[in-house]
Amino acid sequence: MTRYDNLASIIGDRIEQGLYTCGQRLPSVRALSLEHEVSISTVQQAYRVLEERRLIEARPKSGYFVSQHHEPAALPAMCRPAQRPVDISQWDLVLKLLRADPVDGMVHLGPGMPDISSPTLRPLNKELSRIALHPDLRGMTYGDISGAPALREQIARLLVDSGCLALPEDIMITTGCHEALSIAIHALCQAGDIVAVDSPSFHGVTQTLKAFGIKALEIPTDPVTGISLEALELALEQWPIKAIQVTPNCNNPLGYIMPDAHKHALLCLAARYDTPIIEDDVYGDLAYRYPRPHTIKSFDDDGRVLLCSSFSKTLAPGLRVGWIVPGRYMEKVIHMKYIGTGATALQPQLAVAEFVRQGHYQKHLRRMRARYQLNCDIMTDWVKSYFPPETRVSRPQGGFLMWIELPDRFDSLRLNRQLEKMAIQIAVGPIFSASGKYRHCLRLTYATQLTDEIEAAVKKIGETIKRQLAEVAT
Amino acid sequence: MTRYDNLASIIGDRIEQGLYTCGQRLPSVRALSLEHEVSISTVQQAYRVLEERRLIEARPKSGYFVSQHHEPAALPAMCRPAQRPVDISQWDLVLKLLRADPVDGMVHLGPGMPDISSPTLRPLNKELSRIALHPDLRGMTYGDISGAPALREQIARLLVDSGCLALPEDIMITTGCHEALSIAIHALCQAGDIVAVDSPSFHGVTQTLKAFGIKALEIPTDPVTGISLEALELALEQWPIKAIQVTPNCNNPLGYIMPDAHKHALLCLAARYDTPIIEDDVYGDLAYRYPRPHTIKSFDDDGRVLLCSSFSKTLAPGLRVGWIVPGRYMEKVIHMKYIGTGATALQPQLAVAEFVRQGHYQKHLRRMRARYQLNCDIMTDWVKSYFPPETRVSRPQGGFLMWIELPDRFDSLRLNRQLEKMAIQIAVGPIFSASGKYRHCLRLTYATQLTDEIEAAVKKIGETIKRQLAEVAT
Ligand SMILES: Cc1ncc(COP(=O)(O)O)c(C=O)c1O
Ligand SMILES: Cc1ncc(COP(=O)(O)O)c(C=O)c1O
Repeated sequence: MTRYDNLASIIGDRIEQGLYTCGQRLPSVRALSLEHEVSISTVQQAYRVLEERRLIEARPKSGYFVSQHHEPAALPAMCRPAQRPVDISQWDLVLKLLRADPVDGMVHLGPGMPDISSPTLRPLNKELSRIALHPDLRGMTYGDISGAPALREQIARLLVDSGCLALPEDIMITTGCHEALSIAIHALCQAGDIVAVDSPSFHGVTQTLKAFGIKALEIPTDPVTGISLEALELALEQWPIKAIQVTPNCNNPLGYIMPDAHKHALLCLAARYDTPIIEDDVYGDLAYRYPRPHTIKSFDDDGRVLLCSSFSKTLAPGLRVGWIVPGRYMEKVIHMKYIGTGATALQPQLAVAEFVRQGHYQKHLRRMRARYQLNCDIMTDWVKSYFPPETRVSRPQGGFLMWIELPDRFDSLRLNRQLEKMAIQIAVGPIFSASGKYRHCLRLTYATQLTDEIEAAVKKIGETIKRQLAEVAT
Repeated sequence: MTRYDNLASIIGDRIEQGLYTCGQRLPSVRALSLEHEVSISTVQQAYRVLEERRLIEARPKSGYFVSQHHEPAALPAMCRPAQRPVDISQWDLVLKLLRADPVDGMVHLGPGMPDISSPTLRPLNKELSRIALHPDLRGMTYGDISGAPALREQIARLLVDSGCLALPEDIMITTGCHEALSIAIHALCQAGDIVAVDSPSFHGVTQTLKAFGIKALEIPTDPVTGISLEALELALEQWPIKAIQVTPNCNNPLGYIMPDAHKHALLCLAARYDTPIIEDDVYGDLAYRYPRPHTIKSFDDDGRVLLCSSFSKTLAPGLRVGWIVPGRYMEKVIHMKYIGTGATALQPQLAVAEFVRQGHYQKHLRRMRARYQLNCDIMTDWVKSYFPPETRVSRPQGGFLMWIELPDRFDSLRLNRQLEKMAIQIAVGPIFSASGKYRHCLRLTYATQLTDEIEAAVKKIGETIKRQLAEVAT
């Protein structure tokens, strides 16, 4: 990260936190240069970055000001789930999202699909192509049950960025983060057990709990700091919770990054109740701020955290290359891997290993982080402009997903049916709850280039919502 | 298949079945030409094929004779497992086989790994390489949850060869046959249930049962006709069996092909007790005889058979491309797929689809079938030459695996420890039993070219066995 990027992110944070408010004049270039001990041109470049992000505006002869339209939208409320373990439903809705007929010209704001068109991915395609023709036929055998050693070595190196020290032999490769999560749950729990989850939460996890006959206990979750530790502690006291599953970094769908102090406190709480933590970090490398945030795993010194992740959101999901760092549960985890898929497709593993080794991964990440952050600002603006004023919007700290909350009387399923006819796809709220909550919420993806067509689609969504609210009010 | 190949296989079968015995004179070329209404040269070519397979010998001026050394070795005995459901053990031994340190110059006669060096596979590598560079980035997305439509279309076409009529939408792609089997078991059974399996049986299945807390009921199995229907019926009467799992074609490890009448009777029995059948056909396309054998699925008209297979043994396991045709259980099966891995790596799917579509698959199969059949004859000869006379050997009808039974006092685990020091790897018998039976058995793979080095290894195995038997006898 360059100096000016760093400075831009510091000032950006101050604006987001309300230290400088809408329309307020920002410190002069000179003042900032003195305060941060950087050159005048560094400050100028930082201000230009913030202008591009539409956070600030330059006024000739007067200096820089916080954008007029940068009044942050209200945040979604803390959820108040029923405080008891529930059986999981909603599979029909998840399947509908997965299956959505790819109508011609469909605008996809539903699935968690990254932008795969970046030129920084090209070396990966070349590597895949090269390996396929390699005369030693590497990639055609089963390979090591734990996954290609070359890849595990590179992942061990990447883990250092999140503060996590792991050896290649502490890592097992999986068929995407899905398999990592499924293995983790299966290794720890049996039918009838209870798992505590943040709420809203990723449907891949809740559906896995459903498949294994495990109950979910949805814990209230703050849209900025993550799972409520107070509520979790109460739950741990009250119920025999077998595991805690959270996505603390660039949460899907809320976008928050749990503060380090909270991560540490969560780990201590888990230790006190001797409960393992299943940590999903699949969006962690896409945090907008640099260096990237810590994982809970990075604080874990007794092997109670099972870290699950993949290259699906950072590179491409079709590779199906993920991993798990299961701490003290490695033995069980290998058994689950063997019986689940036997091995992970080998050529994609080898290609990714080489891509990372040659430094292409970090370069690609830098580009995607900047792109997604810019898109986040644009999408936030659009939602503020086109959605009704009662709309509450998440403030994503990474990734490419936005959570939107509307008044209780709003029905996202009804919205979805209407949008389908307009060839617009969104993700409806209830799939993010084990018990069908969040019917008044929806999630939008902003990974691809935000064209006029997408703006028009967001506008249509806003209008359709307004119409619905007006109808229901009368 | 050519006419002479067809004729060769008819005569070969007669020899295998003992119709012509060791040293006996075979019908004259003219007689056969009249009997089968084929040309003289077709018969001559057929006899040449059988000579190559070492089944017959030409004696100048006298005609063709069944080979002197073609006294078939005795078959393994029908197993007599304890007739009650058991919890599964043996994971440590399976893991040892999976993990075996690849010592330099190790002779691998253990794992079920096909020959991936055949030039007939080259178009597949080219296709993989081409797809990786395709500008539409196909293969980088999640794709359809059921797998690439293009591939399902080709598999539907291939299924016709086994007598099975299925539409692309009846098929779901999986991460190898492992995932297909795991999904099938998980979709049908819960912890505490009982599944009937043929015995010896594939460790992937029994280990999956173990992971789900399901009990295995091992049914006596004939080395020529497969699972005993009488014993299975008794078991179905006595126990609440939730599913029957069998590998009727080119069974691993016994190599038999269950006769059609038995397949049909098995299906009727299952229908009578309203029990689903999980059919593993992973070696079915490698049957030596042509056309390839039917699946049980091909007789199934009420959707009770879940057919599981993959391209791991026919093409290459590193692709991790398998499939399931789950009949009436499709809905549950898709849920299990979603929670297990979310999707299967897409580029290998697309490459295989194109390889099959262009006709390369059938060409490759023809070559591999011939190769494996030849290797089977050679390996059988070697075992007869180098192993003690009490040795019993399976008569594989396809695939590349041989099951060997020795006197009860023999210990394959001890043999294995001794062979490891000689850098020879085999598969020990107990991993093929849920309850650790078959300690006196072992399995050998004969997929790769049978070099002098491999002959030397087989000789060493024979000698080590003889030494052990002599020691234990005294
Ligand atoms: C939070 C979260 N975890 C895991 C996954 C699954 O990742 P993968 O595609 O690597 O299986 C997703 C993607 O949908 C996700 O959003
Ligand atoms: C009978 C049988 N079924 C299934 C499998 C697993 O196949 P795959 O590699 O496609 O998962 C094997 C391979 O070991 C096998 O022998």
